[in-house]
Amino acid sequence: MVTATEKHYIDPKITLVGAGPGDPDLISLKGVKALRTANVILYDALVDERLLDYAPTEAIKVYVGNPSGDENFSQDVVNQLMVDYALNFGHVVRLKGGDLFVFGRGYEELDYAASYSIETEIVPGISSAISVPGLQGIPVTHKGCGESVWILSGTDSSGNLSAEIQDAARSKATVVILLGFDRLAEIVRIYQKLGKGGLPAAVIQNGSMTNEKTAIGLVNTIEEVAEESGIDNTGPVLLVFGPAVALHHDFQRIRQFFETSI
Amino acid sequence: MVTATEKHYIDPKITLVGAGPGDPDLISLKGVKALRTANVILYDALVDERLLDYAPTEAIKVYVGNPSGDENFSQDVVNQLMVDYALNFGHVVRLKGGDLFVFGRGYEELDYAASYSIETEIVPGISSAISVPGLQGIPVTHKGCGESVWILSGTDSSGNLSAEIQDAARSKATVVILLGFDRLAEIVRIYQKLGKGGLPAAVIQNGSMTNEKTAIGLVNTIEEVAEESGIDNTGPVLLVFGPAVALHHDFQRIRQFFETSI
Repeated sequence: MVTATEKHYIDPKITLVGAGPGDPDLISLKGVKALRTANVILYDALVDERLLDYAPTEAIKVYVGNPSGDENFSQDVVNQLMVDYALNFGHVVRLKGGDLFVFGRGYEELDYAASYSIETEIVPGISSAISVPGLQGIPVTHKGCGESVWILSGTDSSGNLSAEIQDAARSKATVVILLGFDRLAEIVRIYQKLGKGGLPAAVIQNGSMTNEKTAIGLVNTIEEVAEESGIDNTGPVLLVFGPAVALHHDFQRIRQFFETSI
Repeated sequence: MVTATEKHYIDPKITLVGAGPGDPDLISLKGVKALRTANVILYDALVDERLLDYAPTEAIKVYVGNPSGDENFSQDVVNQLMVDYALNFGHVVRLKGGDLFVFGRGYEELDYAASYSIETEIVPGISSAISVPGLQGIPVTHKGCGESVWILSGTDSSGNLSAEIQDAARSKATVVILLGFDRLAEIVRIYQKLGKGGLPAAVIQNGSMTNEKTAIGLVNTIEEVAEESGIDNTGPVLLVFGPAVALHHDFQRIRQFFETSI
């Protein structure tokens, strides 16, 4: 017997989900539950596609590139797609790499959805700024060597080197810079001018993923070490500056080198 | 037929798992997988006990209070319990509220385990410093109002008001202060002395949990608003200072009040 009482109205909803730093097992249970009830998923370049398997097979999966870098998928286009899909298909999960609000433009998407009075839900993700150093054994805070952490973007909203990096370099905080690999030489010079060429520094590409690459050194050597480690701009790269980097196991070799070379 | 080849040796392992800000669904899949293979769980005061249900029923569940506040469970005691259980029972999951490395003392535990040559694994959690404001619609970074985020503890390792708060208050970063509610009056005075009494500020208790309380105001009013909201020290409290707080929906009323009172 078929009781044909199919619903024909649409109940639009948008759930913003942070997928975490890369390893697909670092998404939250809440994120997986949202995916299971999705009618549409809009996903970023930084998201592991295996996460799409949590969604119903009939859900529409739409790749929206890297909104901060890809001209084909500007933030305006993503915003519009998100709202159009919600109005036409119901529950849209906007699946974003990392967390939503650490240079994730999550608020812009929330705000756009609100302008159409569409119900929104927020599912935070594990931020790469904290977890990627942590997975490497670099605690962003640790008693006596980094009692605070300052997270910045290499590039400000006008495309210049972020002016706040100057203040951050002067501070005692552990400094984590996202989207800053292109600016590494300039950032190194800022630290050197402050007499901090001997500060421990790290560059990590594709953190938490199987193709992760790590360079551990000092401000004065980090550009060379990053190049030797084959780090490039083909995946997310973050920079860490501060005494806490010296807790990484590779730093022991650096310490020994400097001790024996005196 | 019974083939009695039970293993009698112990394979010690310690997995540090960040449970996230409070909502039990904000743990990662990787954290749940670790719990499923636990022989012992050592869990914090900040952890939701429903998470223990993911562990095998025969797993030993040990409450270790709040190591940063509870004299009965100092960090030394927790370290020793963790190692003793691993050596005697196998896989210990050390389940901690929030993330492991944002004032989580995760590195101290890793380091102690390493001193016994016990294998360790790190499963990062969603940090309350970023996610709790985010869940309230306060993005810790947003174009034009908070292009970086500085996360501090209210109290430094010697029990004094963290000296870095002075620098943070001067900066343009969104400032998030954990473990600082007791110091709110002192922190407010720092901002006021810098002429920042009109800066938007928030106090959030029990973020992401059903008993969450939020106070939204300005530096000059936040102590009063927090008191009116019934916020106290019976659960985790965090403070947020910066223009991004003005994006919270409750801030609209404050804006209107000041506009109409001119």
